[in-house]
Amino acid sequence: MDRVPILRLGDCLLVTVQVDMHDELAMSLQDDLTNKIVATKARGVLIDISALEMVDSFIGRMLGNIASMSRILDAQTVVVGMQPAVAITLVELGLSLPGIRTALNVDAGLALLRRALDRGDEGGYVD
Amino acid sequence: MDRVPILRLGDCLLVTVQVDMHDELAMSLQDDLTNKIVATKARGVLIDISALEMVDSFIGRMLGNIASMSRILDAQTVVVGMQPAVAITLVELGLSLPGIRTALNVDAGLALLRRALDRGDEGGYVD
Repeated sequence: MDRVPILRLGDCLLVTVQVDMHDELAMSLQDDLTNKIVATKARGVLIDISALEMVDSFIGRMLGNIASMSRILDAQTVVVGMQPAVAITLVELGLSLPGIRTALNVDAGLALLRRALDRGDEGGYVD
Repeated sequence: MDRVPILRLGDCLLVTVQVDMHDELAMSLQDDLTNKIVATKARGVLIDISALEMVDSFIGRMLGNIASMSRILDAQTVVVGMQPAVAITLVELGLSLPGIRTALNVDAGLALLRRALDRGDEGGYVD
């Protein structure tokens, strides 16, 4: 099990991060995700990190990279399920996740994406 | 990270199994899931096993247990994303997953649940 599964939900993709992300796994996730965005013509990407109890700068950078890649492929990224402690750590690390939308849970994230796509926001647009 | 996250999608719950399920993790998943079904009044449970490349009788039994518990709590269980090799192994192990619905992916699983709930099937009903 050396891959993070990417689930399709309508025109969005859902990634649930629940194992420690080491370099190789993060690389394969970026590969798989970009390929899947193109293959499924997905317009949105939801990354659930509710299982993460701590983050480091590596994870923060990975989230940023995924958001940037998705944006170039015209898909918007929403990070969902972040635990309070994780938000604190990210800011303390100086990673305020610019360009990434967040939502409390998958439902809220899907609604956010739906509204953004209905409004016709560009992939890169962030309020 | 010693817990499998349970995501809420409308009135359904989504569990993505992507780490090796040992006894303790399976127990905590059953606990968490039953509690969450009650707390969220969920009517359906989707278990994505697309990340599993092999299964053993333990996993097969766990899926069966989860389906039975959900049914008692009036929620239907759909296992999605099963790889062909896993289906072969399950049958060879004598585990044909009675009482569990399956679907190719999360989208199809959600549609199946939606139809079943609209029709007003009982939790335990299987075609």
